[in-house]
Amino acid sequence: MFKATVIVTLRRSILDPQGQAVHHALHNLGYAAVTQVRMGKVVELWIDTPTAQAAERIAREAAEKLLANPVMEDFHVTVTPLDVATPAG
Amino acid sequence: MFKATVIVTLRRSILDPQGQAVHHALHNLGYAAVTQVRMGKVVELWIDTPTAQAAERIAREAAEKLLANPVMEDFHVTVTPLDVATPAG
Repeated sequence: MFKATVIVTLRRSILDPQGQAVHHALHNLGYAAVTQVRMGKVVELWIDTPTAQAAERIAREAAEKLLANPVMEDFHVTVTPLDVATPAG
Repeated sequence: MFKATVIVTLRRSILDPQGQAVHHALHNLGYAAVTQVRMGKVVELWIDTPTAQAAERIAREAAEKLLANPVMEDFHVTVTPLDVATPAG
């Protein structure tokens, strides 16, 4: 059993109004050292496969087909093994 | 200059309908090996401080005050140095 973490972010060239809003709010809270903010989503997938490669392939395909918009978003996949003892949920 | 990545996820005990919907869709696409899906958000902060510790402290405070709902969400912070040459956005 593996856990794949898929981080989906807007492509750098795409305007991120949500990130700008958070940036503005952080400045109001006094965090002037924050120079830029970009938002994205994270999808954690628990995948029951014999190898990490198989889990990564499934996570990549899921990201390409469903989780990330290929026109505007990039994604990054990391896979970590789970010892079977730990319950998934 | 540092980049802090804040991953905000629902606490394990909280129902994740969005994750269930994605799980259902992945099963319809034939990915039966996916046993569970949980969604969250990722916030990337570019922080102009002299040390990584200072950047991490700012990112934690931003998460506690603004980015994560302390009642329902957990957050995880990772900080990576940026060589000044690379443009932030």
